[in-house]
Amino acid sequence: MRYQRPKGTADILPEEAKKWTYVEETARMLFNDYRYQEIRTPMFENFDVFSRTSGDTSDVVTKEMYDFKDKGDRHISLRPEGTAGVVRAFVENKLYGPEHQRPVKVFYMGSMFRYERPQSGRQREFHQIGVEAFGSDEPELDVEVIAMGMDLLRHFGLKDIRLEINSLGDAASRDAYRQALIDYLDPHFDELSKDSQVRLHKNPLRVLDSKDKKDKEIVKGAPSILDYLNDDSKKHFERVKALLDTLQIPYVIDPDMVRGLDYYTHTIFEIMVDSKALGEGYTTICAGGRYNGLVEQLGGPEMPGIGFGLGMERLMLLMEAQGVKFPVLDQLDAYVVGIGEQTSVETLKIVQALRANGFAADRDYLDRKPKAQFKTANKLNAQYTITIGESELKSQTANVKSMASGKEINVPIDKIVHDFDSIITSNFND
Amino acid sequence: MRYQRPKGTADILPEEAKKWTYVEETARMLFNDYRYQEIRTPMFENFDVFSRTSGDTSDVVTKEMYDFKDKGDRHISLRPEGTAGVVRAFVENKLYGPEHQRPVKVFYMGSMFRYERPQSGRQREFHQIGVEAFGSDEPELDVEVIAMGMDLLRHFGLKDIRLEINSLGDAASRDAYRQALIDYLDPHFDELSKDSQVRLHKNPLRVLDSKDKKDKEIVKGAPSILDYLNDDSKKHFERVKALLDTLQIPYVIDPDMVRGLDYYTHTIFEIMVDSKALGEGYTTICAGGRYNGLVEQLGGPEMPGIGFGLGMERLMLLMEAQGVKFPVLDQLDAYVVGIGEQTSVETLKIVQALRANGFAADRDYLDRKPKAQFKTANKLNAQYTITIGESELKSQTANVKSMASGKEINVPIDKIVHDFDSIITSNFND
Repeated sequence: MRYQRPKGTADILPEEAKKWTYVEETARMLFNDYRYQEIRTPMFENFDVFSRTSGDTSDVVTKEMYDFKDKGDRHISLRPEGTAGVVRAFVENKLYGPEHQRPVKVFYMGSMFRYERPQSGRQREFHQIGVEAFGSDEPELDVEVIAMGMDLLRHFGLKDIRLEINSLGDAASRDAYRQALIDYLDPHFDELSKDSQVRLHKNPLRVLDSKDKKDKEIVKGAPSILDYLNDDSKKHFERVKALLDTLQIPYVIDPDMVRGLDYYTHTIFEIMVDSKALGEGYTTICAGGRYNGLVEQLGGPEMPGIGFGLGMERLMLLMEAQGVKFPVLDQLDAYVVGIGEQTSVETLKIVQALRANGFAADRDYLDRKPKAQFKTANKLNAQYTITIGESELKSQTANVKSMASGKEINVPIDKIVHDFDSIITSNFND
Repeated sequence: MRYQRPKGTADILPEEAKKWTYVEETARMLFNDYRYQEIRTPMFENFDVFSRTSGDTSDVVTKEMYDFKDKGDRHISLRPEGTAGVVRAFVENKLYGPEHQRPVKVFYMGSMFRYERPQSGRQREFHQIGVEAFGSDEPELDVEVIAMGMDLLRHFGLKDIRLEINSLGDAASRDAYRQALIDYLDPHFDELSKDSQVRLHKNPLRVLDSKDKKDKEIVKGAPSILDYLNDDSKKHFERVKALLDTLQIPYVIDPDMVRGLDYYTHTIFEIMVDSKALGEGYTTICAGGRYNGLVEQLGGPEMPGIGFGLGMERLMLLMEAQGVKFPVLDQLDAYVVGIGEQTSVETLKIVQALRANGFAADRDYLDRKPKAQFKTANKLNAQYTITIGESELKSQTANVKSMASGKEINVPIDKIVHDFDSIITSNFND
């Protein structure tokens, strides 16, 4: 019987995995420059953590969760996004305590799970890289986070990037806007899609997000959140814009942007890339915003937060489509060829000694003829072959050949085992 | 309301996460030397993949699976170990094809899930690093894999390591032994534990693994697998031992070792460490073996395989207990101090410019007084502080101070933004 991976999951095979590692290591280095440190949270959380933070009416919670009862009858869910778990960990481990420098700045990378219809760049098990910063309300931090997102995509070599921003204001501004939106939408109630009718009174901002054609038409005439920001919220947003200008980071304001989750406040943003790899026109690759109520919602003190998430699958598609070069670690320093059955012990010893000295080395494990072994050395792009036959075995020497120049020399095995480095530098560096 | 992580899961906070990253990067480098390449498989598989490979009577399948129905009524399970998924991927992606060099050598690292009673070093979500090599039956490959496991622990700085090996032989040897074991155990049937009674006829080798005290007594007199190996199996095991001797890798033969999973054949091994961190005496940290039937079981061609897995949680406990030093990346090159409200834009620009040039830099995001900012710079071990007050703002200069020597100089901001490197080399390298 044949077995298949579950629908919506992928195997990342070696050629591809190397690229993923490159992307992750690049992100790690950049996060270190910005002083964001890694945090790792469980792959699943109690269901309530997500229903509380994402909002009971969100698609994530109502339709897309991988939730189930464990053998102890606990209702748990594979994480559908990264922020809720990090905030839960922040609160549970009291990272808000005075012994931690604020803002507390963390990043994460890993699998997330949503039961959606799989499509290009959208898997049921997908991967995100994300950051969160807690404990500062300053617009400077909003701009640092946005700038870091832009910087990250630049480091990945992406072109044709666009930053879109918006503000949802504080709780008071949002309440005022919510009411204005209901007042505007209510007369259109019968024309709205079923989903939007349900959401209208529970969470009218979600209607702005609707993909229904008719809804989109109606929404066009809706009031803008930006007209309902109170003075504090307006001041915050103005400062964010001014600082982006100072750093010469171009942006576009999109007053209709609401983001899919309930917890955002003030600045929200999406970084988009213009590429046909993900459909026509600009599509979002990195998105985030402030969530000043979230830490409290999960039982912590009043403490602001901001972050972003970036989808790995979409990123990889974009990088491929834009022809980005991946500098990957894949060197084979030496391939050890054994001629005759008797040499197998000796070649194993040499390979092991080279590896112990930090060289990437390999040999045959299929009892193959010398010709096939040399072919493999060639195919694997070995820098050197080291060959031992019966006569070399007797004299305890080996033939070392540079695959680039074709030059070959005979050297004692003992020398190869203990100081292959000096053999290279004194014989092949020309 | 407060939320807690699910029982048996852990948050890996930044101080700890750095150590994990160091361990993973060390493993990556070593695997590259041995030419093992990364493969990433889904976090869950169809339930059948694990019930087929681990054995229907195994504890893993009967008691410890995180299995559930997804929203499409598929019976899936979070992976309880790494090998089954890798073999499934190997078969499904036809990595056995002639275009792939044999042996196909891969490694993986990531979360695994078993519903067990949590204890020190044993979580319900735990993490493994593992390797698999497919397509060679040579004892040389067994020894490469074992040597790599030993090498890995050596690279992690562990001491007091012991290698234990055994052979389960091929299918014929195992069948002969199975019968001998039943013949021996049957007269003791009534004295055996319930679990062992169930297993006796389904899978008598499992009885050897029993932790029940009475069972252990009975098992002491049981025949040894090594007396039931046929000629081929014996020859294979003898060669493995001879090669280990050649590489001067000491080992102990443990004829009672059976490993917890059904799929092993020929060589099996456990690498143990003597440490009080995981209880008294030697405890297993890395284990594996050959599984020559597994690829076929999952629908692939007849193809041998061998691998090992290593538990990260246990590894970290051991490394801590043995006082291993973790060389971690945590440098802060410059902390930018702003004095007065007006400097906030300028300090943001400088911090961003430094980061863009590859320096790890930070500033204050809490609108704090200079004294508090300097305190933070100290606490974070900043190499340099860069300070700007109102007068510096006017003259467009900044004070750069080496925290090590106390030496300070005044330089144009423009110079810091574009060439901080040369400021350091020409002023502070003494």
